[in-house]
Amino acid sequence: MSRFLKPSFEKLVPYTPGEQPKDNKYIKLNTNESPFAPSKKAIAAAKKAAKKLQLYSDPECLALREKLAEIYGAKKEQVIVTNGSDEVLNFAFMTFCDENTPAAFADITYGFYKVFAAVNNVPFVEIPLNEDFTINVNDYCGINKTIFIANPNAPTGIALTLEDIEKILISNPNNIVVIDEAYTGLGAQSAVSLVERYDNLLVTMTFSKTRSMAGARLGFGIGNKDIINDLNTVRYSTNPYNVNSMTLAAGIGSLADEQYTKANCKTIMENRLYTTNELKKRGFSVLDSLSNFVFATHPKLDANELYLKLKENSVLVRHFTLERIKDYNRITIGTKSQMQAFFKILDKICQGDLK
Amino acid sequence: MSRFLKPSFEKLVPYTPGEQPKDNKYIKLNTNESPFAPSKKAIAAAKKAAKKLQLYSDPECLALREKLAEIYGAKKEQVIVTNGSDEVLNFAFMTFCDENTPAAFADITYGFYKVFAAVNNVPFVEIPLNEDFTINVNDYCGINKTIFIANPNAPTGIALTLEDIEKILISNPNNIVVIDEAYTGLGAQSAVSLVERYDNLLVTMTFSKTRSMAGARLGFGIGNKDIINDLNTVRYSTNPYNVNSMTLAAGIGSLADEQYTKANCKTIMENRLYTTNELKKRGFSVLDSLSNFVFATHPKLDANELYLKLKENSVLVRHFTLERIKDYNRITIGTKSQMQAFFKILDKICQGDLK
Repeated sequence: MSRFLKPSFEKLVPYTPGEQPKDNKYIKLNTNESPFAPSKKAIAAAKKAAKKLQLYSDPECLALREKLAEIYGAKKEQVIVTNGSDEVLNFAFMTFCDENTPAAFADITYGFYKVFAAVNNVPFVEIPLNEDFTINVNDYCGINKTIFIANPNAPTGIALTLEDIEKILISNPNNIVVIDEAYTGLGAQSAVSLVERYDNLLVTMTFSKTRSMAGARLGFGIGNKDIINDLNTVRYSTNPYNVNSMTLAAGIGSLADEQYTKANCKTIMENRLYTTNELKKRGFSVLDSLSNFVFATHPKLDANELYLKLKENSVLVRHFTLERIKDYNRITIGTKSQMQAFFKILDKICQGDLK
Repeated sequence: MSRFLKPSFEKLVPYTPGEQPKDNKYIKLNTNESPFAPSKKAIAAAKKAAKKLQLYSDPECLALREKLAEIYGAKKEQVIVTNGSDEVLNFAFMTFCDENTPAAFADITYGFYKVFAAVNNVPFVEIPLNEDFTINVNDYCGINKTIFIANPNAPTGIALTLEDIEKILISNPNNIVVIDEAYTGLGAQSAVSLVERYDNLLVTMTFSKTRSMAGARLGFGIGNKDIINDLNTVRYSTNPYNVNSMTLAAGIGSLADEQYTKANCKTIMENRLYTTNELKKRGFSVLDSLSNFVFATHPKLDANELYLKLKENSVLVRHFTLERIKDYNRITIGTKSQMQAFFKILDKICQGDLK
């Protein structure tokens, strides 16, 4: 820490992203990336844009917003495009939360919410999940706070129904409810269809997971045009050219190839079922996931030790040290052959330990 | 404005970027872009990276930081990489300014400083430039504030010497001094050589201008490792994957082709001289620019009207409405043939008005 750091940041604890090894030796099942390449249309569009980098990217992101609006049944004024969905989430904390409107989110959820609150000096409450890691919807009703819900939740993979989300929206008419749908398209219902009816709803999504574009950094938010306007005021007050032109082009390319995305989602859901079943055969408990990962625990195995042993054997999964989930590992769903290789290694290192 | 916006943002006035027309009909001399394509090595590297977008970009930006450190004579721990230099500038306001350490910058300078201060709730003082738009260095000595100086300044193009910058650094030992070198490489001296000696110096640069990569969004900061650490704490608390993998690759490619960048800089400086001389021939006063733009005024022409007439005739320049500079236009230096076309149109629309 330098002697110039402002005092209110002296205790700021940043987010810890999952390991991103520089070499290729790992079966990488730790950061919920897609095992599939991006759409050929996305790649071709990005390559074309690379030739004209001397000009600024479009700060309005108009062409991409139009395409997103078309696909998600919204108007282009209801869409904001950001540098990954982390950026739109941070903007939501900046824009809609302060000491009088604290944030509220689950105790077990995307670990970044707590950091966004801290960096923006926003008070927050953590609402404990039920014993089985489901959300108790009543805990979120009429609470007079800006609510952040990852749906499906991370790292559990458990999703809320649209009815539950609607109940939360209705009971908090004077507060923004952010539904963070990073893993949409893998079985959970999207709340985007509710945007027309609820002016307090912001749905955030990303191209990182099902669209295989984590490295391109592309996220977006859909909501009432007034709240999108507010978010854009903040965007234009921090970084108006927040999305580069290659990524904008790749996004448009990807949206022109919905069949490819849907086919990949289908495969991931099949591999998720395979992985869940194989884990259960080996005595693991696996939460019901509607994401591209599963969250699993074993009565006889120490989860941290398992994570380390897997890493020694060139498999990366993610382990969190948080008390309530320290007995679990989060395993990203890869290709079928990656998952088969994972089980081969798992069986080898656990041998007699697995029942 | 929505009813959910936090009250402290109700009066937030965002930055207004220069016009970015969607069609190609303009000679675009309004946003200080390079008229040259990026290095072929940059393009090739970006294209290659486009194929592997399913994996997250490197949050440490290690390979690019190593290369930047090598080129700028720094250590990799002294370099932070950001989504354009706007992002590192915003981080500096977030990290080093608060009510007890206000910001200070010129009254005529990069218009975003004021917005960064506002969005971060940082008080600021604007220090008037001299009548001739030069900086009075003594105004910045011992002022106990976090200082932001664009060098060369925008939109004037006028640069400070290294001696002047050193004087400011020495006289403000307990405050960060940010030297914003967006236009480095076009004749002004870089302060990066002072980083080793002054732990209160942060130099920011961008690939947007001389490296022809405005559309890629790539900026960086060089300073003492402790202040870089602080900036990284903020980066990891807002958006750890802030730079996408195509842009990281393009940056490395560009740095492998320094000859190309230098040749382009030389051409721009030649065209700047040509443009300055031609403007003077027509009765304009032109400030001494060490940037890729000139700032010019004419005793008989209304600058706003000229801007509008040029736009009607498919030439975009930039006009600011700020009182002290409302009689000026900022003209980006394009290729020689673009500048010749500009003068042809200028002469046509002004005809008898020019002496």
